[in-house]
Amino acid sequence: MKPVIVLVEPQMGENIGAAARAMLNCGIDELRIVNPRDGWPNERADAMSSGAFEKMPPVKVYDTTAEALADCHYTYATTARIRDMIKPVLTAKEAALDARTRESQGQKIAYLFGAERAGLSNEDVALSHAIITIPVNPDFSSLNLGQGVLLCAYEWFQIGAVKGVPRTSTTELVAETELPAPHAELNNLYNRLEEELRAGHFFRTQEMQPGVMRNLKNMLSRAEMTSQEVNTFHGIITALTGKKNKGEQN
Amino acid sequence: MKPVIVLVEPQMGENIGAAARAMLNCGIDELRIVNPRDGWPNERADAMSSGAFEKMPPVKVYDTTAEALADCHYTYATTARIRDMIKPVLTAKEAALDARTRESQGQKIAYLFGAERAGLSNEDVALSHAIITIPVNPDFSSLNLGQGVLLCAYEWFQIGAVKGVPRTSTTELVAETELPAPHAELNNLYNRLEEELRAGHFFRTQEMQPGVMRNLKNMLSRAEMTSQEVNTFHGIITALTGKKNKGEQN
Repeated sequence: MKPVIVLVEPQMGENIGAAARAMLNCGIDELRIVNPRDGWPNERADAMSSGAFEKMPPVKVYDTTAEALADCHYTYATTARIRDMIKPVLTAKEAALDARTRESQGQKIAYLFGAERAGLSNEDVALSHAIITIPVNPDFSSLNLGQGVLLCAYEWFQIGAVKGVPRTSTTELVAETELPAPHAELNNLYNRLEEELRAGHFFRTQEMQPGVMRNLKNMLSRAEMTSQEVNTFHGIITALTGKKNKGEQN
Repeated sequence: MKPVIVLVEPQMGENIGAAARAMLNCGIDELRIVNPRDGWPNERADAMSSGAFEKMPPVKVYDTTAEALADCHYTYATTARIRDMIKPVLTAKEAALDARTRESQGQKIAYLFGAERAGLSNEDVALSHAIITIPVNPDFSSLNLGQGVLLCAYEWFQIGAVKGVPRTSTTELVAETELPAPHAELNNLYNRLEEELRAGHFFRTQEMQPGVMRNLKNMLSRAEMTSQEVNTFHGIITALTGKKNKGEQN
């Protein structure tokens, strides 16, 4: 089980190519890109990849970060700035250890990287479960995108696979219920929640809505809900709103 | 005490710039370049450095690796291939631990990086005390120059300074004699030795000479001679050749 690298709105093809090379150097071969500035495929990315793309499954391109993360159970957002959000903050090494442990339990892991200058939006960070901050020289801390990917991938590769408990069909069933719900289920829940909250005049102004939802997602992502718990949450919404049909959409 | 990064015959200015940025990201600011293909300064290097050169002492340029290493006590050669030379082989992390320990003893450390495609020559590796091989995906192991510099610098930075024994004027004198001789003294010894060996018809053919000298340097570098031991070695040569004046050149 290997992590997925997700680049959100990367600007320069060179950096996408460098990221691909760096991740494959470290045995990671699944690259997803959200809304690349110059489209996809990209010649400059090819030129900088040193042939990495030919040895990887095809890169997948998405319109939104939420879609790119749909099948992932746990996401690390890489960011140079600590945001005003309550989330675990890990070094690249700590994240790698955590990722290996989760992978051994069957979780699909994503590392999320923002655009070259701006980094990740608060919305993208809110979707993530934890923050990675790579410890570097505080007087010169700006890492190139490809180099940020390299350091995260390198730490993951150095650790080597954590041996999970061998699965029988029985333990698999047991373990499955203990995974965090994939992002797709959470997004579904968040969207439904937002809709219901809007209908219920929860947001005092329209301008407030994005920020409030971000805070809610931050809070809920820390819970690491299982699929069953997400269903339970849907049930709560259904019960509270009294709309039985909507509850069944999940 | 921080290590020196030495790039031998780098070809692309972009890579020099990326290396400078990567090392400064990790708090290392002394860059030396041996015989850069496109001369120095280099506009492409500036463009890729993200302003790193402005925050570093001026880059020094040398004609030979030996000159670039002259004041260094211990050198790690980075290479993807294990050479047919008997030298310690370390991971980037092991080298970083070793470097921090040596630095705490007052040793000046160099990390040696070869040209983009060819890597380091056997001659340059022979000058070095140990080899660094960065563990990466064996099926896709070629690291970009800037990324190789980053990983070595990153491991060094992560460890943090090893606290050396605080020095008084007395302990300094004691410690000084225990440092390995700087490269300048070794080069002087090697050159003299080669001269004497040639004069003594040691090399059966002229073609053999570089390879034989390389093997000798490899062997002698493993000894990590102190300055005093280098002097002793000069004395041995003097004694063996019976040339008292030459012996005094040291």
